[in-house]
Amino acid sequence: MILRSLTAAAVVLTLSGLPALAQDAATEARAVAIRDAAMKSNIALDYVTQLTTRFGARPAGSASEQQAAAWAADYMRAQGFQNVRIEQFPLIGWERGEESAAIVGAHAQRLVAAALGHSPATPAGGVEADIVRFTSLEALQAAPDASVRGKIVYIDLGQMYPMQDGSGYGPQTRVRGAGPAVAAAKGAAAFVMRSVGSDEDRMPHTGTTRYADGKTTVPSFALSAPDADQVSRLVEMGETVRLHLSSTARTYETHSQNVIGDLPGASRPNEVIVLGSHMDSWDLGTGAIDDGAGGGITLAAAKAIAESGRRPARTIRVILYGSEEVAQPTDATGNGGGVYARNQGAALDQHIIAGESDFGADHVYALRLPEGAQGSDFQKAATRVLYPIGVLPSQEVEREGGVDIGPMGPLGVPFFGLAQDGTRYFDLHHTANDTLDKIDPAQLTQNVAAWAALVWLIADSDVDFRAMKPATAPAQ
Amino acid sequence: MILRSLTAAAVVLTLSGLPALAQDAATEARAVAIRDAAMKSNIALDYVTQLTTRFGARPAGSASEQQAAAWAADYMRAQGFQNVRIEQFPLIGWERGEESAAIVGAHAQRLVAAALGHSPATPAGGVEADIVRFTSLEALQAAPDASVRGKIVYIDLGQMYPMQDGSGYGPQTRVRGAGPAVAAAKGAAAFVMRSVGSDEDRMPHTGTTRYADGKTTVPSFALSAPDADQVSRLVEMGETVRLHLSSTARTYETHSQNVIGDLPGASRPNEVIVLGSHMDSWDLGTGAIDDGAGGGITLAAAKAIAESGRRPARTIRVILYGSEEVAQPTDATGNGGGVYARNQGAALDQHIIAGESDFGADHVYALRLPEGAQGSDFQKAATRVLYPIGVLPSQEVEREGGVDIGPMGPLGVPFFGLAQDGTRYFDLHHTANDTLDKIDPAQLTQNVAAWAALVWLIADSDVDFRAMKPATAPAQ
Repeated sequence: MILRSLTAAAVVLTLSGLPALAQDAATEARAVAIRDAAMKSNIALDYVTQLTTRFGARPAGSASEQQAAAWAADYMRAQGFQNVRIEQFPLIGWERGEESAAIVGAHAQRLVAAALGHSPATPAGGVEADIVRFTSLEALQAAPDASVRGKIVYIDLGQMYPMQDGSGYGPQTRVRGAGPAVAAAKGAAAFVMRSVGSDEDRMPHTGTTRYADGKTTVPSFALSAPDADQVSRLVEMGETVRLHLSSTARTYETHSQNVIGDLPGASRPNEVIVLGSHMDSWDLGTGAIDDGAGGGITLAAAKAIAESGRRPARTIRVILYGSEEVAQPTDATGNGGGVYARNQGAALDQHIIAGESDFGADHVYALRLPEGAQGSDFQKAATRVLYPIGVLPSQEVEREGGVDIGPMGPLGVPFFGLAQDGTRYFDLHHTANDTLDKIDPAQLTQNVAAWAALVWLIADSDVDFRAMKPATAPAQ
Repeated sequence: MILRSLTAAAVVLTLSGLPALAQDAATEARAVAIRDAAMKSNIALDYVTQLTTRFGARPAGSASEQQAAAWAADYMRAQGFQNVRIEQFPLIGWERGEESAAIVGAHAQRLVAAALGHSPATPAGGVEADIVRFTSLEALQAAPDASVRGKIVYIDLGQMYPMQDGSGYGPQTRVRGAGPAVAAAKGAAAFVMRSVGSDEDRMPHTGTTRYADGKTTVPSFALSAPDADQVSRLVEMGETVRLHLSSTARTYETHSQNVIGDLPGASRPNEVIVLGSHMDSWDLGTGAIDDGAGGGITLAAAKAIAESGRRPARTIRVILYGSEEVAQPTDATGNGGGVYARNQGAALDQHIIAGESDFGADHVYALRLPEGAQGSDFQKAATRVLYPIGVLPSQEVEREGGVDIGPMGPLGVPFFGLAQDGTRYFDLHHTANDTLDKIDPAQLTQNVAAWAALVWLIADSDVDFRAMKPATAPAQ
């Protein structure tokens, strides 16, 4: 411990010894002008309106996602982006088909449920069994197989509490990811869980389950919160709950694609700043907040810079990734983010930084920078530009980036994060309710302004985030 | 006009000449005690919790409604109600079956829609046609038949603005009631409308259409608000919108029932005060706010009076009506309220007053009394008791009562109304989202307290609302 602390202190000393990052006063003044002009832009709203209205839901690999990508490439060209291209890749798609869920026998009633992504179909005629309820994944893991065999496993973790930073999500997605495989290993007939969400609407939240050893598990469903309440109340009243579940979900071979467009840098065109989001959506909603908004925000931010009257030094690249939602994490080929990172190869060395907008369209409240940039002159400049529109400097390091840009992280690309207010995000996320009307135009535009100003500051400077990263302490 | 005014003045003089209504000080003091005790009652929540959890949706005439009625009769008996009986009547039920709606061709996407009550099924394979959009019923009425023939009529009145008193509902239900018949008369293939609701959730609001000349019209659907927005946006973008609609809805012969229980009066048992609500619900939700809550409120109010230690002079009758939602207004037999009124016959002459709780479970903000009672000693006493829990005296006359008690009005029974805050009622009304969690227990209990105190004041007095009604002016 002592050794580590000394190392950390040494790092701080080293950092202060770096030359101050030059933030040109004219660059900063232009950032302010770009920020204020972006606050009047209506491109983000136009893009997300057209995308969600013309194409509706855009499941990865669907005709709808493919058509939307072709349209978005044209949209980018019309906005003046250059070198607009579509990077296609093969994909195992997943299609919901028809599904139903009901309590049968005593207390017979229809339930509102949705199969989880990559859930296999039920046998024809469905699955019918009594449920066995757990209130944690650990409780299921600890249960004797005999208590679960042939039953429908039901996990109810209770309602997710809404957190501004979205931190309520992780503990619940663990159940969605791993629960079906654990249930399957114990011989369960099917898996049902309370939706991962913070709302009390009669709408299930879908999301992808994880394969176990590369194979699908048991048919798996999310219940809407009121239905989860209902089932748990019956259990608590001492009643036996018998469910009938049916699903015709299937996988199929298809392709998805990333849509990529550049604003080439004036003096350092090989140095690239990536602005990422994803174009696919879940099938239940129209993917307005997840993630049509992110495309609108990043396109509009780049466009605001293009319209400032001065091309920045570095290239700004907007990427509308395909297949963010449904890919298995072990699937190296079926994930737009992974495909882009792999195809770039050595060019990633000149990727200055990447940021991802994939958390709705509500207010950006903080800027997180890569490791080493906390307290830097760049952070100070960014704070001067962004604080007036309600963005705080964060001392937290942006490490993960997001699902789309994430694969570039281990390959050395630094990340920034413009943290969005996620208080109501998980009310809507992965439900039929993810529709255009949920976007607040004023907050959407604040996002555009924050992105435009920040990206300009990076693009029209020589700031080098890799150089700020402290040397890794040698293994102890 | 002059003559009418003179008549009105004479009526006022006559009224002031009536003997003051005796409100015994002890009765009023007990009303306060009952009110405060009722604020601690959990019976309303227990009832609506059990009803909605055990039986789920309770469409009129369904096995679920019938089973719920039998259970509710037992519940009443267990609470000490006497003479608990089930008044059965025949009914033409309506069953939704399977349904779907989608944009096909360009902009193909699934829509979230629900058939309206008593909508006929589509032909097998569904109906497919271009839409023709109207923004009012009048515009449809004025359209040449040729412009509508073979098309799917779509009426989008725009979003209902939430009003505390629920007054936004009428103009929209007109479209739901009459629109399908108008469309059918013009040769339309089907009818679609924006849901009658004030929310922006992806949930359609069902509700009953009106037969034309006793016959069903064309297949008729409500779109959720985001889907209505979507279709209207495509129209406004200049796109042709082609819909595919399917429904297997059907009618069938069944029965429904009213559940009736009394707390017999101590000295005037033939004088009856009716506390009404309905037990059936639409099929999409579990009927918590519409109208499980009403049953809970009225049962709990009567129970609070029963537990006060003193039986009131008059009989308090709680009626859980069957088949409120789905009956056609022209159907004299299939509506629980009509059946009760007809079966009572001359006994209605001794029905002192009736009130109905069927507007959710939010705060009661005003008391409306029958014509003539405005400014009366009774109103003053009621105000003293109810104002401290947030209920204002209203100078508005309660004329309609509600769908359940309404049929007693023309037969001479006066009505009171405890007006509930309806601001969020039409966010949920007739949707899948009408579930238990939408009930705020504190506001529910305030309803119970208001009902208990008011009903006690009427039940333990000789107040005669019929005598307060001004004589009708002779026909001019």
